[in-house]
Amino acid sequence: MVKNPPDSIVEVINTGSELMLGRVLNTHQQWLCRQLADRGYVVSRQTAVPDSALAIQEAVREALSRADLVITTGGLGPTSDDITRTLVAELLGRKLRRDARVLARITAYYRLRKRVMPEVVRVQADVPDGAQVLPNANGTAPGLAMRLDPNPFRSKAALLVMLPGPTRELRPMFEQQVTTLLRRKLPLKRPFVCRTLRTIGIPESIAQERIAGPLTDQVNAGLEIGYCARVGEVDVRLSSRRSSSVGILNQAERRVREILGEAIYGQDDDELARVVLGLLTRRKQTLTVAESCTGGGIANCITNVPGASAVFLGGFVVYSNEWKRKLLGVRAETLARHGAVSEPVCREMAQGARRRTGADFALSVTGVAGPGGGTTHKPVGTVFIGLADSKGVSVTRHLHAFDRETFKYMTVQQSLNRLRLCLMQGG
Amino acid sequence: MVKNPPDSIVEVINTGSELMLGRVLNTHQQWLCRQLADRGYVVSRQTAVPDSALAIQEAVREALSRADLVITTGGLGPTSDDITRTLVAELLGRKLRRDARVLARITAYYRLRKRVMPEVVRVQADVPDGAQVLPNANGTAPGLAMRLDPNPFRSKAALLVMLPGPTRELRPMFEQQVTTLLRRKLPLKRPFVCRTLRTIGIPESIAQERIAGPLTDQVNAGLEIGYCARVGEVDVRLSSRRSSSVGILNQAERRVREILGEAIYGQDDDELARVVLGLLTRRKQTLTVAESCTGGGIANCITNVPGASAVFLGGFVVYSNEWKRKLLGVRAETLARHGAVSEPVCREMAQGARRRTGADFALSVTGVAGPGGGTTHKPVGTVFIGLADSKGVSVTRHLHAFDRETFKYMTVQQSLNRLRLCLMQGG
Repeated sequence: MVKNPPDSIVEVINTGSELMLGRVLNTHQQWLCRQLADRGYVVSRQTAVPDSALAIQEAVREALSRADLVITTGGLGPTSDDITRTLVAELLGRKLRRDARVLARITAYYRLRKRVMPEVVRVQADVPDGAQVLPNANGTAPGLAMRLDPNPFRSKAALLVMLPGPTRELRPMFEQQVTTLLRRKLPLKRPFVCRTLRTIGIPESIAQERIAGPLTDQVNAGLEIGYCARVGEVDVRLSSRRSSSVGILNQAERRVREILGEAIYGQDDDELARVVLGLLTRRKQTLTVAESCTGGGIANCITNVPGASAVFLGGFVVYSNEWKRKLLGVRAETLARHGAVSEPVCREMAQGARRRTGADFALSVTGVAGPGGGTTHKPVGTVFIGLADSKGVSVTRHLHAFDRETFKYMTVQQSLNRLRLCLMQGG
Repeated sequence: MVKNPPDSIVEVINTGSELMLGRVLNTHQQWLCRQLADRGYVVSRQTAVPDSALAIQEAVREALSRADLVITTGGLGPTSDDITRTLVAELLGRKLRRDARVLARITAYYRLRKRVMPEVVRVQADVPDGAQVLPNANGTAPGLAMRLDPNPFRSKAALLVMLPGPTRELRPMFEQQVTTLLRRKLPLKRPFVCRTLRTIGIPESIAQERIAGPLTDQVNAGLEIGYCARVGEVDVRLSSRRSSSVGILNQAERRVREILGEAIYGQDDDELARVVLGLLTRRKQTLTVAESCTGGGIANCITNVPGASAVFLGGFVVYSNEWKRKLLGVRAETLARHGAVSEPVCREMAQGARRRTGADFALSVTGVAGPGGGTTHKPVGTVFIGLADSKGVSVTRHLHAFDRETFKYMTVQQSLNRLRLCLMQGG
């Protein structure tokens, strides 16, 4: 339910037969929608079509009949499947000319890499009449932007932007060139402000219930609140399109921060692992992990963050009882008496990892990831999370009754959150 | 370029404002498209729209004006955003009746979990006239299927299937109920067969070049070949819709297997980690890993596979030089002389991990994940992969000049593939 309709109607079209066969995940949709929404251009429809002339032209024509901004992805490369450029030129009745500057850039790209330039890549230098070239810093196919005024399919002018398919070409091109283009060619008519507060550990319904009442004034004054739930997390998105937007947004953010407190781990594009590593880095403290059921998931998540090596020493993946004993010093007696999935074993894992490495903090996890291995007292999804620091060890017990990968993901996020809460409390 | 047009036109519509804000990844698209394509129903268009009455009705109406089968996802829950059921009933001019059996099932769902049933969930028992209920084994909102004959938006009848949004409800419902429904209500007119051979380590253009010629006869006889490239991998999809399909497909598969040989790691839904674990399990051999730059990525990937604990003992994540020495016994001299990212250190890491754990195989990786840390001789993306077994250690050097996460992913896949090739050669 959009109270303040956006200034511009925006549509995204993803082309690619591989998308329709379901052998490739469409990550462009999420990325582009988020980039656009956070700048005030909410996408109202996204379409994916195969690399067929009819399907692509139909999708572009329909989008242009509805939208002020249409962004296509894919189909600008040199192979026989890459037909978007030609089809769009044909649809709009524009001639393609080979652009000397683009060709020079493609030639230079190959020369620099000491590779022979195949004849077929020259087609990427073809530019429809009147199109603006968006140079590609990470590949050979440039993006293209066209202002359609008149727009043959609607009484209102439109901006058509065509981006190359590869992620590492598309993303920088959008960030460095399309955003500027939008500001210039399709400026927002009203001030748009947006802030997303990212929370962990609160169900969506509870977040909604606690926020709705206290923010009534701001909502009446034009604030929009959106909730996006993912596994274990909820994003609270605050936005407004009024002249008084900034003030309203700041008030709203203050209120939400008061209400949800420590459940908020970051804002906008913050990621939990990055936040935790930031806290450790500022305090010049180090971390190790001892993972059983997450099987390297915590270490993997942490080391996705550039610069992790400054605070993350490394970790242990200890699936077997023997390894828990040998590598971490968990006592055979504790294992025999309580079982590997137990509070005492989790405690000794954290203690052992911290002692053996000299890290300031040690996280430990042991649980039943499933699908097998559950018992009446410890059903699939049971997990213990331990955190050891200079003051001692604390262990919490949880039940994440999900499939194996979701179980691992939940446990990784919850472990990192345990550490974050401890660091924030000055632990 | 589809040579043999599919029997039925299929469209998928994903509803959800959170998709348009880009805060949630649309995994339904890939999953449904793949399930459908592998059964002979190739999706010709996928659309995502926000939870707005106009957008949803427009999308459904348009899809019904083109397609024989329309599948929607989301919007069947109990909250104010869940409006698909009502909107579709309205669009089709069908009354909603509260279904006693569905309501009883929802009531039982809450009773079983000893939870109070909120009044609002009753709406999920509302069923449009003439709709078939698809019971939900993992949640409260049933799916709905409607045969539209006549179809108010096209001269041809259509099947409309509405699935709930949560993944763990949608997937079993599709697998257990929708597939049967399709066979009954929208049977394929011609025999469809499809097999996907999954390869690693061969660029798409090379695979295409090597396969095209030798398969000319089969292509002339009705075989379709599709290529889907992902990071480091290419799927070769063989399909046919002729009466002689099975024979043609078997011939084609044999030829492709001869041509691509060991680059093929599996078929259809096989995953590399699962294949490698299967090989180890059959041979009753064990594995450990010593990871520097992949930071737990290999362990994490392996432990995503159920039953991994039978062959995967655990692993070491050793970011610092000190840990490489202490945990794996890499010599200080080797580190000082060659640096942590070097063939000799990689070698000693694999040897150390294997010796210290008694595993049959040890994989080791050390490299520069970036974005920082590169040098002229070892630029960002440089990585060494070691594999130790009873016969010794071998180390290979690679350059994966990608962003950090892609670098890690490539390295994990390549490490697993090294082990796979070794296991296949009886190593």
